[in-house]
Amino acid sequence: MLSPYLLFLGDVTELAAAKTAAGILQWRPELCIGQIRAPGGTVDLGLPEMRPAEAAKHGARTMIIGIANAGGFIPDSWLPTILVALEAGLDIAAGMHTRLVDVPQIRETASRLGRTLHDVRQPTQSFVPGSGRKRSGLRLLTVGTDCAVGKKYAALAIEKSMRARGMKADFRATGQTGIFISGRGVAVDAVVADFISGAAEWLSPANDPDHWDVIEGQGSLFHPAYAGVTLGLIHGSQPDALVICHEPVRKALVGFDHYPVPALQDCIDATVSAARLTNPVARAVGISINTSRMSEQAASEAIARLEQQTGLPCRDPIRHGMDDVVSYIRKIWR
Amino acid sequence: MLSPYLLFLGDVTELAAAKTAAGILQWRPELCIGQIRAPGGTVDLGLPEMRPAEAAKHGARTMIIGIANAGGFIPDSWLPTILVALEAGLDIAAGMHTRLVDVPQIRETASRLGRTLHDVRQPTQSFVPGSGRKRSGLRLLTVGTDCAVGKKYAALAIEKSMRARGMKADFRATGQTGIFISGRGVAVDAVVADFISGAAEWLSPANDPDHWDVIEGQGSLFHPAYAGVTLGLIHGSQPDALVICHEPVRKALVGFDHYPVPALQDCIDATVSAARLTNPVARAVGISINTSRMSEQAASEAIARLEQQTGLPCRDPIRHGMDDVVSYIRKIWR
Repeated sequence: MLSPYLLFLGDVTELAAAKTAAGILQWRPELCIGQIRAPGGTVDLGLPEMRPAEAAKHGARTMIIGIANAGGFIPDSWLPTILVALEAGLDIAAGMHTRLVDVPQIRETASRLGRTLHDVRQPTQSFVPGSGRKRSGLRLLTVGTDCAVGKKYAALAIEKSMRARGMKADFRATGQTGIFISGRGVAVDAVVADFISGAAEWLSPANDPDHWDVIEGQGSLFHPAYAGVTLGLIHGSQPDALVICHEPVRKALVGFDHYPVPALQDCIDATVSAARLTNPVARAVGISINTSRMSEQAASEAIARLEQQTGLPCRDPIRHGMDDVVSYIRKIWR
Repeated sequence: MLSPYLLFLGDVTELAAAKTAAGILQWRPELCIGQIRAPGGTVDLGLPEMRPAEAAKHGARTMIIGIANAGGFIPDSWLPTILVALEAGLDIAAGMHTRLVDVPQIRETASRLGRTLHDVRQPTQSFVPGSGRKRSGLRLLTVGTDCAVGKKYAALAIEKSMRARGMKADFRATGQTGIFISGRGVAVDAVVADFISGAAEWLSPANDPDHWDVIEGQGSLFHPAYAGVTLGLIHGSQPDALVICHEPVRKALVGFDHYPVPALQDCIDATVSAARLTNPVARAVGISINTSRMSEQAASEAIARLEQQTGLPCRDPIRHGMDDVVSYIRKIWR
């Protein structure tokens, strides 16, 4: 996609629903020049409010659909803003299951004006089923007790810390926001079900023995809608190291109030057990804790408690970075 | 699809690779009038050998691609037979990931001759992610220690036994062969990964409190390529009852020699545990054993041993039928 970006926040009213936009702003702030909402939207990322024409005048090249909904479709209420952005000279990029190009009005307007539509969730290559064969190189996968709990942030913070120490490390995106941030990857939840683990094997090919792929996890083994994606990603990634992501104050799964967040230790045990099918030495190496809704003191107490419970380093990737988890990793793989 | 059928066995040399054809013949023999192989093929189902023109003369209406390969593509070596069948007046039906209609020579020949191409693995409806909400009615899901171990046969035999007793029961197909046999269903391995459990919820909607959906399982939780499909299907099916399918003489997963078949009890424990996420009362109610490569005596000994180990009725759906498992079920759900 051509930057800079105008971030479209739609009509959502919860920050969690705008996690694509928030993630791009967190990790690539230099590319984001403005935000725009549809009627009814209340989420504010703190960027200047801009209409498309104004954004284009400030240099914006692409409007990114920065929100996600269950099912990944494009509701009619987003259409006027998308069409106005095209008219104002912007390309559009999205990571929905429904492709921009499959919405007739969007396709026709883009075609008439010569604009480009980017559908990053659509795989551009074909996959085969996973082989289960071990590949050279080291792999870390972030997993979690729920969706939207910090798996991508943990992976990006770990890549940053590893690279700062001169370690060979590559973030591997498995979702739309990660692809927007890193410019490559595969949205594993949009792959044909038979090829989930095969896509994960493709994403993280054989590499130097001391090279780390730091793979963004998806979903949770305890999620009634998405656990299949989670398990296939675990098996195909063949992780040596697992970092478990958790938000202590969350009681129920986001959007699934009838499902409690699983206990952290249950999630560690189930994930390590699943990972050992394709990599018998898989082990947990750290906890990534999301403390965004906790005070400094509550966060410190939670970290002390979780470290004592699990025997693993526990950090918030935004508040603390993941240096201490990477130090723990270096002790194991010298 | 219009019957009767000519079954295409391709160039495969192992019966397991022709399981689609074998399954149709097992459960719908009255629809199958002949078989045809491509050069190099050695599998024999015992049907009369017929070339397409001969089969058409005997009344055949459709040639079914009765074989499966990893990846679900259509190799060039099948093309001549498919084109000759179209010329001879037959429609073609297949359940591959690659659609017949996407192979230019097949599409153009069918179009020129006015023949119909059936791609039963392609979902014809759109799905949404699973909701995890409990539905009325009872559900049984077959699961297994590997692929191609009897999950479809067990489900069909259970439906047959339940209906013979006057119970309300419907077989729910989740793979191509099951769809060919029952005329409906959804190939869950061809669904977009995000919608596996949603497709399973769609397949088995709310029903009478005493109605059983008998759902065909897929893959295995211990399979390095397909476990994601298995887990999503378990969660979306919300089974009350699980029947675990197993072949005692199999040492390694089919096509994955480096992966041993898991212990039966490990498979029971892992599956029941996974199922309880969306249905806390899920329980194992029987073992379906594949004794096709065992003597009568070896089969009897294996059954006695497995029944003692698990405390559950154990039967071969072909050799014994599943009446004893259904009797066990009736004791639990009176």
